Amino acid sequence: MNVDEELEDLQERIEDEIPGGIAISDVEYEGPELVIYTSDPKKFADDGDLVRDLARKLRKRITVRPDPGVLTDPEPAKDEIDGIVPDDAGITDYDFKPDVGEVVIKAEKPGLVIGKHGSTLREITKATGWTPDVVRTPPIESSTVDNIRRYLTQESDERKEFLRQTGRRIHREETSDDEWVRVTTLGCGREVGRAAFLLSTPETRILIDCGDKPGTDETPYLQAPEANPLQSIDAVVLTHAHLDHSALVPLLYKYGYDGPIYTTPPTRDLMSLLTVDYLDVAAKQGRTPPYDSEMVREAIKHTITLDYGEVTDIAPDIKLTFHNAGHILGSAVVHFHIGDGLYNVGFSGDIHYDETRLFNGAVNDFPRLETLFLESTYGGRNDQAPSQEEAEEKLIKLIRKTHDDGGKVLIPAFAVGRSQEMMIVLEEAMRKGRIPEMPVYLDGMIWEATAIHTAHPEYLNDDLRDRIFHEDENPFLADCFQQVDEGTEQRQEIRDGEPAIILATNGMMAGGPVMEHLEMLAPDPENSLAFVGYQAEGTTGARIESGRDEVRVPSSDGRSETVKIKMNVYSVDGFSGHGDRDELISFVDEMNPRPEKIFTVHGDEGKTKALASALYQNFNMRTISPMNLETHRFI
Amino acid sequence: MNVDEELEDLQERIEDEIPGGIAISDVEYEGPELVIYTSDPKKFADDGDLVRDLARKLRKRITVRPDPGVLTDPEPAKDEIDGIVPDDAGITDYDFKPDVGEVVIKAEKPGLVIGKHGSTLREITKATGWTPDVVRTPPIESSTVDNIRRYLTQESDERKEFLRQTGRRIHREETSDDEWVRVTTLGCGREVGRAAFLLSTPETRILIDCGDKPGTDETPYLQAPEANPLQSIDAVVLTHAHLDHSALVPLLYKYGYDGPIYTTPPTRDLMSLLTVDYLDVAAKQGRTPPYDSEMVREAIKHTITLDYGEVTDIAPDIKLTFHNAGHILGSAVVHFHIGDGLYNVGFSGDIHYDETRLFNGAVNDFPRLETLFLESTYGGRNDQAPSQEEAEEKLIKLIRKTHDDGGKVLIPAFAVGRSQEMMIVLEEAMRKGRIPEMPVYLDGMIWEATAIHTAHPEYLNDDLRDRIFHEDENPFLADCFQQVDEGTEQRQEIRDGEPAIILATNGMMAGGPVMEHLEMLAPDPENSLAFVGYQAEGTTGARIESGRDEVRVPSSDGRSETVKIKMNVYSVDGFSGHGDRDELISFVDEMNPRPEKIFTVHGDEGKTKALASALYQNFNMRTISPMNLETHRFI
Ligand SMILES: [Zn+2]
Ligand SMILES: [Zn+2]
Ligand SMILES: [Zn+2]
Ligand SMILES: [Zn+2]
Ligand SMILES: [Zn+2]
Repeated sequence: MNVDEELEDLQERIEDEIPGGIAISDVEYEGPELVIYTSDPKKFADDGDLVRDLARKLRKRITVRPDPGVLTDPEPAKDEIDGIVPDDAGITDYDFKPDVGEVVIKAEKPGLVIGKHGSTLREITKATGWTPDVVRTPPIESSTVDNIRRYLTQESDERKEFLRQTGRRIHREETSDDEWVRVTTLGCGREVGRAAFLLSTPETRILIDCGDKPGTDETPYLQAPEANPLQSIDAVVLTHAHLDHSALVPLLYKYGYDGPIYTTPPTRDLMSLLTVDYLDVAAKQGRTPPYDSEMVREAIKHTITLDYGEVTDIAPDIKLTFHNAGHILGSAVVHFHIGDGLYNVGFSGDIHYDETRLFNGAVNDFPRLETLFLESTYGGRNDQAPSQEEAEEKLIKLIRKTHDDGGKVLIPAFAVGRSQEMMIVLEEAMRKGRIPEMPVYLDGMIWEATAIHTAHPEYLNDDLRDRIFHEDENPFLADCFQQVDEGTEQRQEIRDGEPAIILATNGMMAGGPVMEHLEMLAPDPENSLAFVGYQAEGTTGARIESGRDEVRVPSSDGRSETVKIKMNVYSVDGFSGHGDRDELISFVDEMNPRPEKIFTVHGDEGKTKALASALYQNFNMRTISPMNLETHRFI
Repeated sequence: MNVDEELEDLQERIEDEIPGGIAISDVEYEGPELVIYTSDPKKFADDGDLVRDLARKLRKRITVRPDPGVLTDPEPAKDEIDGIVPDDAGITDYDFKPDVGEVVIKAEKPGLVIGKHGSTLREITKATGWTPDVVRTPPIESSTVDNIRRYLTQESDERKEFLRQTGRRIHREETSDDEWVRVTTLGCGREVGRAAFLLSTPETRILIDCGDKPGTDETPYLQAPEANPLQSIDAVVLTHAHLDHSALVPLLYKYGYDGPIYTTPPTRDLMSLLTVDYLDVAAKQGRTPPYDSEMVREAIKHTITLDYGEVTDIAPDIKLTFHNAGHILGSAVVHFHIGDGLYNVGFSGDIHYDETRLFNGAVNDFPRLETLFLESTYGGRNDQAPSQEEAEEKLIKLIRKTHDDGGKVLIPAFAVGRSQEMMIVLEEAMRKGRIPEMPVYLDGMIWEATAIHTAHPEYLNDDLRDRIFHEDENPFLADCFQQVDEGTEQRQEIRDGEPAIILATNGMMAGGPVMEHLEMLAPDPENSLAFVGYQAEGTTGARIESGRDEVRVPSSDGRSETVKIKMNVYSVDGFSGHGDRDELISFVDEMNPRPEKIFTVHGDEGKTKALASALYQNFNMRTISPMNLETHRFI
């Protein structure tokens, strides 16, 4: 049965299932969803269980859309909705999208717009014909999130056509009767950086991640025949937004790829933020960026977002599910179910197994999983990290001491993840009186990244999510946080002012506003510099951490100058987005089910091998440290 | 430097090296050889060491060709040659090829045409301008060999253009500065049949073997992206002519491949014989052959033959050398040297390590070899074979007994290899009086295959080669051998005649003339059936060997009939083209140098794994039983 026949068949079955008198005008795949077009959206909304029952019977994800002609005009519709939704829902904005018959409603309390089991939503549709899509009014405005929403509205015709084609491709007839599953490691084999894997079956090819290798111009082996032609790849699946996983995803569109990217909503937003910044940094450093920002927009246009736990058909023979990875906002462990019970393979992406200040611990519970690709960043024999408590204790002590000395604490941090973690730790310490009250300055993209975090509170850990829902407890809104948005002048004021803490990017002092703070604060022995993350070889951060008392940094006039380091230098281990060795081993130990085979990747050669050997010895499973350009077959 | 610049440069260097007054009109690559065109072929021939010295200095294989204008006409040239070459050289034929300025001289004693260190050859060139190419007048006419020679002469213009293009491709500039070496197993991973490997570097892709899987329609995974587009493969390298290695080589030309096949001269001839027969058998069995005989001719036209030990550039970064494999005529262990000392990888093809009646033992001595792909046909724990002596003893006994009973011995045998081995054994036994004198009938392609063996005596073991050079000792010319060429009538005469031995194809009784002999001889309890080779599951041979006293065979009218087996059935183990388990292990044990890694292939799953584990335990080397569609990287 080809797609057209299948859709006709589905329309007949739907017409049989639903009450008489509801007219179905069309049934179409749009991305992984089955969309039912009807001239009777109100009747459809009458029966609260109708769509759910249909979805269960047809085993499809179903969306009902009104035919354009049957919609109430936006202005009267707005009034109707205002009448239906209780006032304390706090609706702040409406966005009507006639092409899909949807109205995006921004509200401070989305639950009150949704109603019990979606009853309020159905009332809205019954009254107006529009399908409401409720989003939380973010407590902090994010220009990234706003731009993406605006851009997608503007491109909605093209996006709709893209979704239709993708839907048809996903549901195409299978043509091969051969059965095999294999994975080619295109990057991050025995190295950190340029994560990229190709999962292939006789029917389908999926690219997982496509990152850069920081500090080098090495890219994943996209030119390998396994990945070519790029046009014929079915889907790109992105585990998280870090550049070593995402930086070269937009490049694929420059090379002719035109298919979907599946990822979580926060990863889409963070990818947009980080890749645009990646292009800026390249330009500032006088390098030619591998693509321009138009390609980032292409990537956004082709992104289909999925929440954790949504089992989704992405090819005739492959179902994809994302699970929380505990690493950064939206980060996912990726699970592929292949064939009809044939095989299951997972990719950990980067994981943190223990719960952290920001996130729940990584998921290691699956219906089935035979093979896992596991990150090994801290897989080495000596990669034991202090506990979060010890790390926080050390940080608090050094802040107290510096404050007592009348100095300032400079903390280099990447905008996404570590900065938010520091904010939570500092806000709590200040609130509980463990450190004196003082300003915490945020310099760089930290505030924008924080805004994206608060736009997706359901991706944060349970405690943090609850606090963000209550504006007065939202730690990110605490008074101590002050954005630096006036450049050098403001930084000089900070230097000349009272004791303070400064979080500034980037986290390895390889550029960014942290450099100016360093220059200003380094000569004063009362100040402190606190490293809270890994300093890669060759960076200024690494040089200072190794004990140099003088470093050369780029000066504001483009040349370089020498900075004498007289401030105190501390290294605070124990904050990390990655699980340490024990955590990685526990992640496997406690997996349910335990996989038959583990491929250790995303770690230096020695660490991937050390972790492989530890897992083999502890659990007697087959372990492999694949090299780039190797292909292993599972069935 | 591109190829044109390189050739200009070479021409200048050659002009500098050779004595003044010899005009070089052109220098061109033709396949792996550098061809020097000159209007002074006679002067070139003056200095016996000139070409050798040039070859050493330029590190190239060099051929000198006269410009067409300077050649003596064929008739007077023939007279000149007759005058130069001693009469007892026994010249039987001349074949002048004006396009390359070569004259092929067939002689019974080629050594006398060549002269000491090639002195007579040089005299011929000095006198006539023609470059002589001396071949032995084969003791038995082979239509295969004759047809190939005729066909290549007829296609010489096209072939010359092909060689020129191939030469330029081999010597193209390297474009990649990346360094890696990997091999994809496209067939014969954990199975016997459909041998095929793809060796790839950033610069080059080489396909090693492309066989069928007897009894199935499974082909190598040529559709894998690693192998595509087939047009971009640099070279096909063929280990030997057995169909599980060669059957689908001609198919590559149907699929658009247009490049060279490198193999030994006997393998080219046997491949032609066996693939044409493969098409015949398919047609007779009512199957659609995957290609037609035109594609076999294409394959022949694109074959570049290399003798054992000739180190040959086949790509900018790859040198190929064939070594004797001891398995069938022309069979080779293939050695690749990659980059400038970067890596060495070998493919055993099928091997016999001990010397046999026909061949020297397989070579396991290499300048360097880091990774070996090793056949595992008899790699299982219990794959111990009796010695050749025991096997011969058993065969002789059963022949004597059958003769004494007044019966006939039917020996099913494949035309290539086993038949010639039986001929040697039977001839010697009869000559030494160990079995009575009686006719040995040869039915099927045995005689033609034997002719190909005698056309390439230098590929046989030392003893057999020497005997073939002396006509009166050539065992294949013994009086006892009689070809069956009159079909059913003659077979009936044999049945009704005196005691005799019948060698008939095919070796597993899966068709061929052996079936008619079986039908005629089976009912008589005085006759014997002797299996001297492996009987694959599902064949009539296997059914009889397993003890059935009745089998159904196709009758001459196309239907099938039942044959009652009343003749004696014997299985004689110990004749095999494959080394047994001990031999495979000794092959590795005595390798020089011993490789770091061994991939066990070309064996049932259990045997590849058993051999891998034995080699790992004995020699503590890394061993892997790759699956089809897996790619392993070495550097
Ligand atoms: Zn990461
Ligand atoms: Zn990473
Ligand atoms: Zn063979
Ligand atoms: Zn074979
Ligand atoms: Zn043997």
